[in-house]
Amino acid sequence: MAKILILNGPNLNLLGEREPHIYGHTTLVQVEERCKAVGKRLGLEVDFRQSNHEGQLVDWIHEARKTMAGIVFNPAAYSFTSMAILDALKASQLPIVEVHITNIHRREPMYHKSYVSLAATGVICGLGPFGYEAGLSFLAEHLRSQPAPL
Amino acid sequence: MAKILILNGPNLNLLGEREPHIYGHTTLVQVEERCKAVGKRLGLEVDFRQSNHEGQLVDWIHEARKTMAGIVFNPAAYSFTSMAILDALKASQLPIVEVHITNIHRREPMYHKSYVSLAATGVICGLGPFGYEAGLSFLAEHLRSQPAPL
Amino acid sequence: MAKILILNGPNLNLLGEREPHIYGHTTLVQVEERCKAVGKRLGLEVDFRQSNHEGQLVDWIHEARKTMAGIVFNPAAYSFTSMAILDALKASQLPIVEVHITNIHRREPMYHKSYVSLAATGVICGLGPFGYEAGLSFLAEHLRSQPAPL
Amino acid sequence: MAKILILNGPNLNLLGEREPHIYGHTTLVQVEERCKAVGKRLGLEVDFRQSNHEGQLVDWIHEARKTMAGIVFNPAAYSFTSMAILDALKASQLPIVEVHITNIHRREPMYHKSYVSLAATGVICGLGPFGYEAGLSFLAEHLRSQPAPL
Amino acid sequence: MAKILILNGPNLNLLGEREPHIYGHTTLVQVEERCKAVGKRLGLEVDFRQSNHEGQLVDWIHEARKTMAGIVFNPAAYSFTSMAILDALKASQLPIVEVHITNIHRREPMYHKSYVSLAATGVICGLGPFGYEAGLSFLAEHLRSQPAPL
Amino acid sequence: MAKILILNGPNLNLLGEREPHIYGHTTLVQVEERCKAVGKRLGLEVDFRQSNHEGQLVDWIHEARKTMAGIVFNPAAYSFTSMAILDALKASQLPIVEVHITNIHRREPMYHKSYVSLAATGVICGLGPFGYEAGLSFLAEHLRSQPAPL
Amino acid sequence: MAKILILNGPNLNLLGEREPHIYGHTTLVQVEERCKAVGKRLGLEVDFRQSNHEGQLVDWIHEARKTMAGIVFNPAAYSFTSMAILDALKASQLPIVEVHITNIHRREPMYHKSYVSLAATGVICGLGPFGYEAGLSFLAEHLRSQPAPL
Amino acid sequence: MAKILILNGPNLNLLGEREPHIYGHTTLVQVEERCKAVGKRLGLEVDFRQSNHEGQLVDWIHEARKTMAGIVFNPAAYSFTSMAILDALKASQLPIVEVHITNIHRREPMYHKSYVSLAATGVICGLGPFGYEAGLSFLAEHLRSQPAPL
Amino acid sequence: MAKILILNGPNLNLLGEREPHIYGHTTLVQVEERCKAVGKRLGLEVDFRQSNHEGQLVDWIHEARKTMAGIVFNPAAYSFTSMAILDALKASQLPIVEVHITNIHRREPMYHKSYVSLAATGVICGLGPFGYEAGLSFLAEHLRSQPAPL
Amino acid sequence: MAKILILNGPNLNLLGEREPHIYGHTTLVQVEERCKAVGKRLGLEVDFRQSNHEGQLVDWIHEARKTMAGIVFNPAAYSFTSMAILDALKASQLPIVEVHITNIHRREPMYHKSYVSLAATGVICGLGPFGYEAGLSFLAEHLRSQPAPL
Amino acid sequence: MAKILILNGPNLNLLGEREPHIYGHTTLVQVEERCKAVGKRLGLEVDFRQSNHEGQLVDWIHEARKTMAGIVFNPAAYSFTSMAILDALKASQLPIVEVHITNIHRREPMYHKSYVSLAATGVICGLGPFGYEAGLSFLAEHLRSQPAPL
Amino acid sequence: MAKILILNGPNLNLLGEREPHIYGHTTLVQVEERCKAVGKRLGLEVDFRQSNHEGQLVDWIHEARKTMAGIVFNPAAYSFTSMAILDALKASQLPIVEVHITNIHRREPMYHKSYVSLAATGVICGLGPFGYEAGLSFLAEHLRSQPAPL
Repeated sequence: MAKILILNGPNLNLLGEREPHIYGHTTLVQVEERCKAVGKRLGLEVDFRQSNHEGQLVDWIHEARKTMAGIVFNPAAYSFTSMAILDALKASQLPIVEVHITNIHRREPMYHKSYVSLAATGVICGLGPFGYEAGLSFLAEHLRSQPAPL
Repeated sequence: MAKILILNGPNLNLLGEREPHIYGHTTLVQVEERCKAVGKRLGLEVDFRQSNHEGQLVDWIHEARKTMAGIVFNPAAYSFTSMAILDALKASQLPIVEVHITNIHRREPMYHKSYVSLAATGVICGLGPFGYEAGLSFLAEHLRSQPAPL
Repeated sequence: MAKILILNGPNLNLLGEREPHIYGHTTLVQVEERCKAVGKRLGLEVDFRQSNHEGQLVDWIHEARKTMAGIVFNPAAYSFTSMAILDALKASQLPIVEVHITNIHRREPMYHKSYVSLAATGVICGLGPFGYEAGLSFLAEHLRSQPAPL
Repeated sequence: MAKILILNGPNLNLLGEREPHIYGHTTLVQVEERCKAVGKRLGLEVDFRQSNHEGQLVDWIHEARKTMAGIVFNPAAYSFTSMAILDALKASQLPIVEVHITNIHRREPMYHKSYVSLAATGVICGLGPFGYEAGLSFLAEHLRSQPAPL
Repeated sequence: MAKILILNGPNLNLLGEREPHIYGHTTLVQVEERCKAVGKRLGLEVDFRQSNHEGQLVDWIHEARKTMAGIVFNPAAYSFTSMAILDALKASQLPIVEVHITNIHRREPMYHKSYVSLAATGVICGLGPFGYEAGLSFLAEHLRSQPAPL
Repeated sequence: MAKILILNGPNLNLLGEREPHIYGHTTLVQVEERCKAVGKRLGLEVDFRQSNHEGQLVDWIHEARKTMAGIVFNPAAYSFTSMAILDALKASQLPIVEVHITNIHRREPMYHKSYVSLAATGVICGLGPFGYEAGLSFLAEHLRSQPAPL
Repeated sequence: MAKILILNGPNLNLLGEREPHIYGHTTLVQVEERCKAVGKRLGLEVDFRQSNHEGQLVDWIHEARKTMAGIVFNPAAYSFTSMAILDALKASQLPIVEVHITNIHRREPMYHKSYVSLAATGVICGLGPFGYEAGLSFLAEHLRSQPAPL
Repeated sequence: MAKILILNGPNLNLLGEREPHIYGHTTLVQVEERCKAVGKRLGLEVDFRQSNHEGQLVDWIHEARKTMAGIVFNPAAYSFTSMAILDALKASQLPIVEVHITNIHRREPMYHKSYVSLAATGVICGLGPFGYEAGLSFLAEHLRSQPAPL
Repeated sequence: MAKILILNGPNLNLLGEREPHIYGHTTLVQVEERCKAVGKRLGLEVDFRQSNHEGQLVDWIHEARKTMAGIVFNPAAYSFTSMAILDALKASQLPIVEVHITNIHRREPMYHKSYVSLAATGVICGLGPFGYEAGLSFLAEHLRSQPAPL
Repeated sequence: MAKILILNGPNLNLLGEREPHIYGHTTLVQVEERCKAVGKRLGLEVDFRQSNHEGQLVDWIHEARKTMAGIVFNPAAYSFTSMAILDALKASQLPIVEVHITNIHRREPMYHKSYVSLAATGVICGLGPFGYEAGLSFLAEHLRSQPAPL
Repeated sequence: MAKILILNGPNLNLLGEREPHIYGHTTLVQVEERCKAVGKRLGLEVDFRQSNHEGQLVDWIHEARKTMAGIVFNPAAYSFTSMAILDALKASQLPIVEVHITNIHRREPMYHKSYVSLAATGVICGLGPFGYEAGLSFLAEHLRSQPAPL
Repeated sequence: MAKILILNGPNLNLLGEREPHIYGHTTLVQVEERCKAVGKRLGLEVDFRQSNHEGQLVDWIHEARKTMAGIVFNPAAYSFTSMAILDALKASQLPIVEVHITNIHRREPMYHKSYVSLAATGVICGLGPFGYEAGLSFLAEHLRSQPAPL
């Protein structure tokens, strides 16, 4: 049974509490539950983690290289500032779906340019927590039919 | 039964034939069939169109304001050059999912900045034709639970 | 009796309905009626048109070169993206008043730089539908006293 | 009887003499006479002033806050360099029509970006001295029908 | 007998009439005649078209993919604004010679950066109508000696 | 019999040897032979030179002012860095055709902006060694019909 | 008893009246009273002035060079446009605390870059009228312990 | 008794030792002592911390959301590079005073643009260690008179 | 006897006192004396003035249009910020020599781009007070031999 | 016996495994062995460390201030994003050789501008693992002959 | 008797012939004669040279370090492109007056930014050939009163 | 015995004399001696040259293509301005080590971006004359173990 790492970056532990007019009312625990349910339905084992530490996220991505079949990643603020995470993702050679709760292109310019997109297979933003689910579905389909879209 | 407009911009009539190392081998007819099948499963009527003419796309979006419940839109090159389409989408006040077959953020800089994203509810790129399907699924969920994510 | 072309660009067919907090509640039909009344008072025949198609607008400007004495033009989104319209206007050698319903300089930066202004005799923005009327008045005066202001 | 302040910025005392191939042959005294005639016709009292001193213009705008119903303002060079005037205009909360004799968008880039436009209700340029008249007409109409256009 | 599409963009129907101090006095009909004569001499059949509509040009380029051996293209204003045409040209995989009547590098900056050049085999500008002829000659030579220069 | 200077800038002495996947396999000696043959056919005497020294190229252009009827110039890297050559060309007042073997607009940005284009009558790029031949043909025609295109 | 100049730039005479949702309800007279009270407590004589005239502010700074021990300066709009004031402050060689009522870094970009900060000892913004008080306290401490922080 | 978190970013543990010609000779321990003394006088409990780890600072800000009444924050280098801290501060919804020992606007450009300023209530720089004290005083006053300045 | 206006901008009243390591030890009174002596030798009457007020400088330039034969102008900080002075100089149509004591190109970038240079006949910088003298000598020569250098 | 810290930034633990077409096949353990051998030959004790955590690297640099004679530092991705590390290095006042395995100037623009270079004594890139060895040799020589090159 | 090198850059051998509407009708030989006459009057020996070769100019500047008391330099196009000349001038440590015949600030932007100005004592432009004379006069005065202006 | 070309660009003939506070006191002759000694030890024949002429350096690089095994190159100012040298280096296909005496990244921005780095195998800066030695050592190792690092 293929294992998928779902990774969450800084401040996502506050999801549902922090600026709910922007990020909505769903908590990270609820997202985790839903992802696990969806994963089960798709035949994927879901490993769900969060950290505020850039170095910790790099360590986990390194670990995933050998143990996971893909990553669904909401890198939050590190999307825009961390080349260390970008390099780690490139090194992983895994299929990666980058997810943002909000449509980052409608926010301030500093939220427009994600380093992570340069290593991601695909990017989903603005679909709320549904984005995690769509990311998992894509990975399930992708793992079945090896030859990846660009 | 809610109706969804799936709109395709310039050159997408060549999908599957044109630069397949970039865009893959699936043709637009195959995308249409899959979308209709998925729509049926989700209880959505799918109206699938393509045009190379900016003005035609504007006209169709105007028409959709009164007759459709949402739009899945792959605007192709007009994403990056058409403010007329942006204004039409803003005027429509419909939920809109922008879809790109490829991860536009990994292409040349002129493909990075989409006007359409400024009016879209959410954006999906790099997931290949699966992006259309995810867009439909999101709209189905979104129409059930009115209060939209940002 | 001199003939004036009043040209309206994309999405203006929705005037009064679309984003009324920005564009107001007057419809394009009402603008047309007022322009015709004002034209009559000033001794000008008014030909009032709208299109969402860039190429159509270029064709109409070509046609006006031989048949009209001036143009009042609200190019909407094509102001900011169409060099084809700019070139057509330059070729027309007619006096041109560019009109925008809103003060475009108080909107987002992408609405600040109009190509059309490079060919216009004058520009009016932010005066609502009154801008059309002022444009007609200027052309009436201008046609009486040939030597145009810069 | 509503009072309108018509304000003229630096070097406009030379109008008609200075670079007439750009600014035309009408003098500021002639503009004043015409504005007063037009004002009378519209039922508006016109107070017409000119200064080369930025601070003086700020003082007059402060004074207008309590005594005038609107401002027609040709800020000339201070359009492009004075944030003090911008702040004074914002503080006035009056309807303001910015007027330029020439089409500033066809001049050198340093004449393109007016600070004053950020506080103006509307902007007119390139219509020669007729711009003052159109500004007065707009204010007359605007004062009759309170709910201002954006 | 190989067939070459000669495509002309917006406003070129006015060639010879419009701004002759810039574009010269030769009309598009005269250019067409000369191209056909030159084509005959080179053993090429010439199909010569003009449109002001971006979408129409895209459609014709799609059509050319299957029926033509090369394109000589004067895209006029769409050179600088149309990514849809760029994408169509890339998809065509034909040898393309971009032609401009004038030396665009000596004009205003907005005329300097052509999207079409990113897909063209070669570019000729500033040689007047002779540029069309040189483009045809190049294609004749190119079709004889398959391995194209970069 | 009119004399044409064909000038070649730095590193072109290596043509055919250096990076043949970019510049092709034709050597500069072969280009010279072909140009002389073409010149003979067109009734032009061809003087063909190459130097790696910017100052030498400036000296030759000065010399050409009095002795040549036109210049075909492949300035190679000095296109992008030499304002001294630009000034020399402007001073020459000769018709000049700038030639590049490759389509410089498809290379890295530092190869996009040629100083030489600011003084050239026309520019040809991407047509391989054929560009020299087209340049000569243009000059032959141009010398016959004095009034030059812009 | 050391004397401190408290200088206020353009439009601050309207403090408390002008855009109170931005600048608060305290008037400049109230700020002056508070500053004088605080000055007394700190053993400093306070000289409190306001002008809308750039030249006047320059003159006062020159005067202060010989007669004052420090300056607390709210330059308002001239912060962002006046290099004359910057040069005057540099010439004064006094300790200077720049104060802004609001946090200028959260406003529009044109309010972000203060020339005055290049000559100021320190800068306080966003603390409301308390900023003046903190500036005075700093100067009191600073005058006691000569060797200034950078 | 209200509790204030005083947070210090990377390298501040070296204060007094590191580049004393820039940062002065006061050590962080001395700053802490002074802050605690000032806090006592103002009726505030001071919790004083330092870390070189971005993630640690994010964690502490999260903790402060529930337990502190305000933050005085010298983010040092993370001011300019950490959007994760910015997001954490926004989520905290606490009053925040950003403090820099030196006047960052007189340093190299990379020290000019602080992300933290986008979430701070106010900013103090260049007043040396006195800035901490002024920050505490502001918070004391601010907590007494709820309605915060912008 | 021709009259020359020597105009000095803001802060130059402090010359010799202010930042002497940058501006030297000569005072403005000494510069005036020297200019008058040089003027006498050259047969020119010298009118020497200084002001810190932009509006005052504009007024004096207007006055000079009718009464002076040329201007030697050290605009100091207004060089870089005043378009009102630029417009006044353009309107004067006098020969103007702009003078700066220091080499402004070796200072910070904000001192590099002078508006005044756009209207000046010539510019002298970095020659210290000798620049005024050279400016006067140039005007003397220039007035003798009308046809001015560009 | 002088002690040298060899510091390695994020993802270098994967050296030899990660993108070997870019970084080569040598592992970090092999680099360490070689550095220790070279150190021994040069009479230097080598302390070799790696971390993915920015804060950890800052801590180690602080520690080195008192205990090491120099640093050879491959900061990897933190070169381009960490001002905290830059500040720590400046504070250390040690001789520092920055090393990159690859020639960063031939990679994407985001890898061109290293913060660390602003504090480094020297920089070596593109020499593969040999760069570490050259760095050690330089430090050995440098420690012998105190007066450092710039 | 002090010796002054007067150096002339590329294309100045054509002075008087080349673009006389820009550069005037005086030839370089006439400039040389005048400089020698002026030099004699000022007690300076003048060595007057011209070259189109950047390397030659560098060589001559090296030679001047030991043999000349100052340089008057019209670097023409190399002003804007040669850092080698800039470095040579910095190394010379001589007083240098940069001269341009025309006011370079009124020409195209590429003529605005001179590298040579970064090493020059002073800069004169727009005064025509008189600029050389003023440069010599300045050097005469400068050599008498050692302590140079900045 | 492999031959290495050591090439030195403009002004390096003055090394040791010119700005010794920046470039140190070692002369180019001393550098040459040391390089020859090091070369001998490494089994490499060293050919050491210097020129101030860009064209001369291009010629020597061409010559080296056939006769040398590698280049150690200190291009000095031409690093930043010469695309001709860049193209020559690319054509040489030799391993190239670029050397700068100083750390160019700590100098003014115009010294940061080297064209030569785009063709170099590796770059060394800031290690003083030791950089040449390290370059030679790298080439020795590189020639032994063919497969070069990127």
